[in-house]
Amino acid sequence: MLSFENDYSCAATPEIIESIRNTATKQYPGYGNDEICESAKAKIREACASPEAEIFFLVGGTQTNQIVIDSITPQYAGVVAADTGHVNVHEAGAIECTGHKVLTLPHHDGKIDANELDEYCANFYADGNYTHMVFPGCVYISQATEYGTLYTLSELKAIRKVCDEYELPLFIDGARLGYALTATGNDVTLEDIARLADVFYIGGTKVGAMFGEAVVFTHGSVPKHFVTLIKRHGALLAKGWLLGLQFDTLFTDNLYSRIARRANIAADRIREALVERGYVLTFDAPTNQIFITLDNETSERLQRHVRLGFMEKADDTHTVMRICTSWATTDEQVEELIALL
Amino acid sequence: MLSFENDYSCAATPEIIESIRNTATKQYPGYGNDEICESAKAKIREACASPEAEIFFLVGGTQTNQIVIDSITPQYAGVVAADTGHVNVHEAGAIECTGHKVLTLPHHDGKIDANELDEYCANFYADGNYTHMVFPGCVYISQATEYGTLYTLSELKAIRKVCDEYELPLFIDGARLGYALTATGNDVTLEDIARLADVFYIGGTKVGAMFGEAVVFTHGSVPKHFVTLIKRHGALLAKGWLLGLQFDTLFTDNLYSRIARRANIAADRIREALVERGYVLTFDAPTNQIFITLDNETSERLQRHVRLGFMEKADDTHTVMRICTSWATTDEQVEELIALL
Amino acid sequence: MLSFENDYSCAATPEIIESIRNTATKQYPGYGNDEICESAKAKIREACASPEAEIFFLVGGTQTNQIVIDSITPQYAGVVAADTGHVNVHEAGAIECTGHKVLTLPHHDGKIDANELDEYCANFYADGNYTHMVFPGCVYISQATEYGTLYTLSELKAIRKVCDEYELPLFIDGARLGYALTATGNDVTLEDIARLADVFYIGGTKVGAMFGEAVVFTHGSVPKHFVTLIKRHGALLAKGWLLGLQFDTLFTDNLYSRIARRANIAADRIREALVERGYVLTFDAPTNQIFITLDNETSERLQRHVRLGFMEKADDTHTVMRICTSWATTDEQVEELIALL
Amino acid sequence: MLSFENDYSCAATPEIIESIRNTATKQYPGYGNDEICESAKAKIREACASPEAEIFFLVGGTQTNQIVIDSITPQYAGVVAADTGHVNVHEAGAIECTGHKVLTLPHHDGKIDANELDEYCANFYADGNYTHMVFPGCVYISQATEYGTLYTLSELKAIRKVCDEYELPLFIDGARLGYALTATGNDVTLEDIARLADVFYIGGTKVGAMFGEAVVFTHGSVPKHFVTLIKRHGALLAKGWLLGLQFDTLFTDNLYSRIARRANIAADRIREALVERGYVLTFDAPTNQIFITLDNETSERLQRHVRLGFMEKADDTHTVMRICTSWATTDEQVEELIALL
Repeated sequence: MLSFENDYSCAATPEIIESIRNTATKQYPGYGNDEICESAKAKIREACASPEAEIFFLVGGTQTNQIVIDSITPQYAGVVAADTGHVNVHEAGAIECTGHKVLTLPHHDGKIDANELDEYCANFYADGNYTHMVFPGCVYISQATEYGTLYTLSELKAIRKVCDEYELPLFIDGARLGYALTATGNDVTLEDIARLADVFYIGGTKVGAMFGEAVVFTHGSVPKHFVTLIKRHGALLAKGWLLGLQFDTLFTDNLYSRIARRANIAADRIREALVERGYVLTFDAPTNQIFITLDNETSERLQRHVRLGFMEKADDTHTVMRICTSWATTDEQVEELIALL
Repeated sequence: MLSFENDYSCAATPEIIESIRNTATKQYPGYGNDEICESAKAKIREACASPEAEIFFLVGGTQTNQIVIDSITPQYAGVVAADTGHVNVHEAGAIECTGHKVLTLPHHDGKIDANELDEYCANFYADGNYTHMVFPGCVYISQATEYGTLYTLSELKAIRKVCDEYELPLFIDGARLGYALTATGNDVTLEDIARLADVFYIGGTKVGAMFGEAVVFTHGSVPKHFVTLIKRHGALLAKGWLLGLQFDTLFTDNLYSRIARRANIAADRIREALVERGYVLTFDAPTNQIFITLDNETSERLQRHVRLGFMEKADDTHTVMRICTSWATTDEQVEELIALL
Repeated sequence: MLSFENDYSCAATPEIIESIRNTATKQYPGYGNDEICESAKAKIREACASPEAEIFFLVGGTQTNQIVIDSITPQYAGVVAADTGHVNVHEAGAIECTGHKVLTLPHHDGKIDANELDEYCANFYADGNYTHMVFPGCVYISQATEYGTLYTLSELKAIRKVCDEYELPLFIDGARLGYALTATGNDVTLEDIARLADVFYIGGTKVGAMFGEAVVFTHGSVPKHFVTLIKRHGALLAKGWLLGLQFDTLFTDNLYSRIARRANIAADRIREALVERGYVLTFDAPTNQIFITLDNETSERLQRHVRLGFMEKADDTHTVMRICTSWATTDEQVEELIALL
Repeated sequence: MLSFENDYSCAATPEIIESIRNTATKQYPGYGNDEICESAKAKIREACASPEAEIFFLVGGTQTNQIVIDSITPQYAGVVAADTGHVNVHEAGAIECTGHKVLTLPHHDGKIDANELDEYCANFYADGNYTHMVFPGCVYISQATEYGTLYTLSELKAIRKVCDEYELPLFIDGARLGYALTATGNDVTLEDIARLADVFYIGGTKVGAMFGEAVVFTHGSVPKHFVTLIKRHGALLAKGWLLGLQFDTLFTDNLYSRIARRANIAADRIREALVERGYVLTFDAPTNQIFITLDNETSERLQRHVRLGFMEKADDTHTVMRICTSWATTDEQVEELIALL
């Protein structure tokens, strides 16, 4: 059956499969202490224009969020996030598992607002009881967000300014960073991300890799003995070069951007077709995730032919569903979907 | 200066001070394995009409919330509470410190609503992604609430019913239980609490004791090796009989109820005077906590003469303040306050 | 340079590489809810002769130890292990990270002794203060051990008996289970393991897979909502079928045993050559890990030509080194090593 | 029945009982923000000759160990302690509960040895795998130790030197510090402790107070927002002035030293009588704890008349028991005990 259910339903790009095949009989040192990881890091540093960046490869997104947030957030503090943030909703309590509260701000199409962040911090310190409360300890945002929307450069700068004022590290979840960077209308570059965030990650799992997220610390702020912290969370991959290899491949000849852009083009075409046919887009979002509010009848009809992601009931007669393209989406699949609409 | 700032500003009732003086030269076994604790437990069991109840004495409220919730909530689950619940706001992340998320429901004058709880649970299990989410694992309510309001018997029964349906233990924070039980108009008895909750505590710190909370498990549901769990959280008092002694005194000749009732009478008189003088009561609450919304000028004038609790800014020109009576409040203090209004 | 440093220095067997290539363009549901995982589980259940076994696939060994132990050990308890156990020494505190103490027994060539385990438990409960101590909550052993040694069937039965007596779940770390099952002289079958353990895992990372450990609960004892617990620890792989696929391949045509046996044959040959040349084997161990106590001069000479694993200084003039074969070790590599001895 | 079971079997010195009685009707601000706490801190600073020391009052010893160690130990690290240390044996896993491993050194009559500490650290960093291991993160010692023995000044200096070399904060558990400071032959002053430790506590629970431990940070090293960390662990006493009051009383007119010295004199007399009668002292210890190795018959005979502390079985026919004096021990009790010997 046709599926636009998510962006992690195919193993990896042919280039990555080929890389793995080519290195399968060679021996490498364990735990990421190998030359392929070094090569991948060099390419990422260059792409970020951050020659000093320190880079670590992890396997998955929730794991990365857990370890990074636990490492950069003081014990007396929590992480500020949109109430729709992945860390707040869909990580089974992985953040609280490490002892930290998720402090939520109301989302605006998946994004937090710099003014509301400022107000939150100001109110916190204005409360006479704040020593009995969880301090804001870092800020978590996603680019693209869980709703496929994007922060603009000026929005990111405004958030950064508040972070500076309250000495909060800014952590950007880039599980879908590729789709953000290559979206039509996006004005934020990878260099901007590297400059504005204290730490962020470049998502591989959803953008061409079998698995893997590249964590980038750009402000000399890497937590002490970070490899040990990774190990302590059970997250250090024995065959670390498999992570390096995938990112080395993705950051060769611009592959990461090229495949991400392809997914966005597919999504643009589907969005266009949806609008033409009078469908209601739940959010105005330019990346590979399309949320549509469907009457239940249409929803059921479509799902007889194509797997979609369920998001939530909008009301008794409507449902919000997700159409998700990926680096692996083909033109044929797009046409087939459009024909069904 | 006159103070109505809180209900924990005096050491203890004279009866408790006297009890301690009388036993000060005697030797007792440590960690609560003494006859005074046994006597206190027997009296509490009788007051609860729960001959099978298992009782433990702890030092403070946040400590009690932390240990009880951590003990009754599965690892994959969080505690459902009002967004205004003490565990969510004023415990510095003590719940998250043990790995559990606080799952919030909107409060209604400090209370959760049984229907909304039902809906929350129903929606949780309706979501296709619920294995990636924090399960509701127990329900936390306060009686009286943080805003001085009370659950009625029928409200408690309705919450209990939802708890039964979803197999959620119900935990009642009774830091101010004395003031709840003896409030004008209250229809919930200690026996009702013991029957409807799986576990609750009888607050001593705010109702006559130097410190101490009596945790009562009434449904045979005491977590295995609970004393070890207390020790593991650093909360086992060496001289446990000091806890038993205070509760033994409070539950002799109805002292606990008598002193709590006195605080409510004082609060009733102050409320009456406030209403007569046209003050705005923020909540319609019958216990020892009175919240008033003051214009800033009045607020500042009053605070030159009496210490009040700050709650929050209502808007740019108004502030919500708390007047709190206690078992120690004297008629003279009440008159002095009223004269200032 | 020639390397016998460890058994995780090559990506994966050709069969696994080929399987991944063949499925790379197909779409699968996420998080292990796919038919390939089902197929792999069926094959493992059959190999274990445990039709009721519940199976979960995780990425790495430390991760697996952390999640399993945290899930099966009560809050008031710790895990009993050999002082040389991987969980005690080389996991950067991953067990303590989840709140549990590792309770150590002295090792005997890497193994615990059933009588000492019995005595440990008996002494624990004999101590008048045991409610102030960490209870024994489960037992962790490795097969093969960290020193390459094996429990005999009768040793395992004796440990099981003590576990039964004290109601302790028995968890077997099978990171190198393949090498254990196919070692010369081994008398423990996979069926024995499945029958005697409450939970164990079949290691993939060190036996032919790119990564992956198959956790098997055989006594109906799978912790409630175990998938959520995995997610909460950041360990749920998005593309779960990649794990299923590797185990499906390994458990087809007996591949797992065949490649493990190959490593043992290589190790047997090296051991024979070592003994012939008068080298001192540190342990009498029949699996793919060979520990030798070398004078420093020999140690340095060898390491100019072949990468070995460093274990520890034996004394000022001697060092314990590890020679490790794997499924990927070739006859040529073995000959080359022997020529160097 | 006569009891020498422990040093926490009487409520408090008459001076403390009287102080509490005198302040019982007065109102104080909560959570330690009161003038009595300030007064007590000033007296302690003076006694320590540490005008810059920052002081916090906690309720109990395990609680204090848990919070201090969790606050000063990095996430990637554990606490180094004697294998007989209270944190390793009798705190029900309170340290591991916060995610930290207890790294044990062999004890010598309850003490660690500076050379062995040095060697431990040196070996740790010499191991090629140390990033996979738990780093030594701070050092915990007790003065007096769990066996009643004392570190000499030169031993403490030697430990401090190793701590400096490896940048490990030194934490001294002073649950029985009073008995250490006033023991016959002791050469370590409170000023020495304050100078050599980064943080230590002055035990109240076992030396005259109802409860309470005064934590003293002397090197400007108080963890950020320490009050919030206390609250987060559920350990912030609402009526904090009750803690301040007890320490203010104990540090007035040298009361703390005077009552501790009394216990030591009593212990000295008992020790003398034991030696005269040919009893075997298990340890050569000068403080209020006396350990004796008894044949089982004598042990049973004595325990028919006096409560003693059980420590451990020495062998099949002998038991190690503890005789413990305290600030509350009377001359009559001592005579009565001696008559029984």
